[in-house]
Amino acid sequence: MNDTTALLTDHYELTMLQASLADGTAHRRSVFELFARRLPDGRRYGVVAGINRLLDALEAFRFDEQTIAFLADRGVVDQPTCDWLSDYRFSGDIAGYADGEIFFPGSPVLVVESTFAEAVLLETVFLSILNHDSAVASAASRMTWWAGGRPCIEMGSRRTHEGAAVSSALAAYISGFAATSNLEAARRYGIPSTGTAAHSFTLLHDTERDAFVSQVDALGKGTTLLVDTYDLTEAVRTAVEITGPELGAVRLDSGDLPSLAGQVREQLDALGATKTRIIVTSDLDEYQIAALAPAAVDGYGVGTSLVTGSGHPTCGFVYKLVARADRDGTLQPVAKKSPDKISIGGRKYALRRRNAEGVAEVELVGVGETPTDDGDDRLLLKPLVEGGKVVGRTTPDEARAHHLTVRDELPRSASQLSRGEPAIPTEYIGDIQARNPYAPRPRA
Amino acid sequence: MNDTTALLTDHYELTMLQASLADGTAHRRSVFELFARRLPDGRRYGVVAGINRLLDALEAFRFDEQTIAFLADRGVVDQPTCDWLSDYRFSGDIAGYADGEIFFPGSPVLVVESTFAEAVLLETVFLSILNHDSAVASAASRMTWWAGGRPCIEMGSRRTHEGAAVSSALAAYISGFAATSNLEAARRYGIPSTGTAAHSFTLLHDTERDAFVSQVDALGKGTTLLVDTYDLTEAVRTAVEITGPELGAVRLDSGDLPSLAGQVREQLDALGATKTRIIVTSDLDEYQIAALAPAAVDGYGVGTSLVTGSGHPTCGFVYKLVARADRDGTLQPVAKKSPDKISIGGRKYALRRRNAEGVAEVELVGVGETPTDDGDDRLLLKPLVEGGKVVGRTTPDEARAHHLTVRDELPRSASQLSRGEPAIPTEYIGDIQARNPYAPRPRA
Repeated sequence: MNDTTALLTDHYELTMLQASLADGTAHRRSVFELFARRLPDGRRYGVVAGINRLLDALEAFRFDEQTIAFLADRGVVDQPTCDWLSDYRFSGDIAGYADGEIFFPGSPVLVVESTFAEAVLLETVFLSILNHDSAVASAASRMTWWAGGRPCIEMGSRRTHEGAAVSSALAAYISGFAATSNLEAARRYGIPSTGTAAHSFTLLHDTERDAFVSQVDALGKGTTLLVDTYDLTEAVRTAVEITGPELGAVRLDSGDLPSLAGQVREQLDALGATKTRIIVTSDLDEYQIAALAPAAVDGYGVGTSLVTGSGHPTCGFVYKLVARADRDGTLQPVAKKSPDKISIGGRKYALRRRNAEGVAEVELVGVGETPTDDGDDRLLLKPLVEGGKVVGRTTPDEARAHHLTVRDELPRSASQLSRGEPAIPTEYIGDIQARNPYAPRPRA
Repeated sequence: MNDTTALLTDHYELTMLQASLADGTAHRRSVFELFARRLPDGRRYGVVAGINRLLDALEAFRFDEQTIAFLADRGVVDQPTCDWLSDYRFSGDIAGYADGEIFFPGSPVLVVESTFAEAVLLETVFLSILNHDSAVASAASRMTWWAGGRPCIEMGSRRTHEGAAVSSALAAYISGFAATSNLEAARRYGIPSTGTAAHSFTLLHDTERDAFVSQVDALGKGTTLLVDTYDLTEAVRTAVEITGPELGAVRLDSGDLPSLAGQVREQLDALGATKTRIIVTSDLDEYQIAALAPAAVDGYGVGTSLVTGSGHPTCGFVYKLVARADRDGTLQPVAKKSPDKISIGGRKYALRRRNAEGVAEVELVGVGETPTDDGDDRLLLKPLVEGGKVVGRTTPDEARAHHLTVRDELPRSASQLSRGEPAIPTEYIGDIQARNPYAPRPRA
């Protein structure tokens, strides 16, 4: 195992470093911006997650002896570049949207300012983390919104990469999930974990009754019994016979959930188990959760669709050079000229403008000096790293609270599952228009 | 960081363990099977990847002191269970399809035989690894098939979780990709890595010419110059002015690739750079690659669609208890009774039957004694672990060679990108039918 994150990097970042060190441009002051050109089809907003993981990755981004030896042996870069890398420490500034914050097309989610050499190396690992975690958080937020007060449990570990599983649990928690099945996420991030039994546990025993008795003996009457291995009605009857009305919950993992949940609710009530909850877990996504709103369901376990971003497993964030010093040291905006991939040069600030009722109206993005906060406009870029020092960490609980607060600012239409435009428009202010013919018209 | 893989596990595996240890069923001989009920919509075959990573994860699956302390402090399991876990070593047998092998619905990709306690704990980490890696390998194989002799380069790290990125590079290599941009994959697995420069490198310099001169000075005339930052025709002219006809390649990352590639080819030829290759890299997938077959393109860089499984980021593998000992120690087949989630009890073997021309005809799955290989039927399950000892490792190059060999066995229709049935049917032999009313009709 390698504890450094320095090789979670694309080869070309190192060849660019070598060439720019040789010609001196490596040391030009540079601003990189991480943003999404658009939201996935049909999404009304995105959710930022991964910022704290990105800060961890930055602190572990070191070219130790073993790493340098690999780069030298393979001829990835030359000796002067290896020498430069062995002293690598990011010494610049990073500002960004907080974990849990909402983003829109063009939101400058991360602004990295340093030398070209220091900042270009971080491109891949920063994009990997934010593209993944924010994709999961964005899907998760729609699920918890539609689940209303009913808890959502993250249980998708088995359907994604084992490392991504741990990060997915965190991203889901930030977007309001109540718990995860993933034990490493529980250990690493302090997220509540939960789980009781799979079908294999019932099949292991000679009878379903044996399995239920065993589980209740081990975990207590408040446990959740999985009741769809053989005959559902029989299983519910057996379960309540064993526990009485104190049975915590039953879980349904297959079949037509709305009608089965109604049937099980009636049966439980008839047996006196009126407080026993019904948890459903069969291939749910935000659409299923919305459809189950009127059903007799008390909680949702969500797997595959959560960890795969519900159809959109990546955010489409890019990391672009938007300004760099010229020969005289003056910062100049830069942008690729491409009609199909719009980029806007210059170091950005961003505000979320809210109306008198506190409802978000527009995402304002500008170039130049950040205006002072006048109360209606919420400043979105927070200092994360200053002079190479991490200053902007938040806890998972802070990120989660922040998300639920800022999601409440959105117009109600943001929860719509139908296809449509972002919940609020992104507008550019200042003299951006003059520099980039593809920019939307500036705000009057 | 935690070097053990033991917590890449769902909470419920440990609660099942506790309950089964208490009632004694934990020690029942058990067979778990990992398989997919179906292929993703439209896919004609799947590709197994992750087997070697799974063997690594098994060897690192240890409950060390820190891990046990977490489980005890959090109350995940009781003290007798912690004591049992601290001695955990998998002592059973595992057979499986090799990395690079093709699979179909119902293929018993992995068969794990041990006590229930030992085998149930591995469910999540095994599924995570195989669901992820095989999803990427399955998408990658369609891309390399359609790319024909043109090399495909994996460059999707930035669009997936940073850990998944490394595994994706390996999975793509197994399915015939020539190289990766990911340096950690190059270090860990010895895969060739490659890369030259991004748009930021051109934007960093005062002129495009400065950038090209710098890159050629650093990397030689055989390098690949990115020519679509400003004006394509101008960039190609400048490039060849600097290098002469020895320019290695140009890269196009935007626009209408078939027509641009044709235009650039003509321009290069007119400038005498007839051997300069054209590499394209803009949001490619297997459909784009197929469409580019007649275009003047020499290689493909593939990112997002590869690492996200080209629309299918997970394989849908499940891990099911298919047999376990009864009170007398006799192994009994078991299966959940559910019309919408078919499972077939019993320990399986699997053969790929080929016709006289060596073309695969049918995936034969049976229960009971494995028949001896008669030459036409290729045995698919290889010993991976015997008595707890790993015996079935292969190298990435062996897996890649195996994939290209067994893919060649498939009927030509397997390469079709249109929707349709699996390239060959899965048929069940023996007395499976009698045990499961949902099983397909047995072969006559």
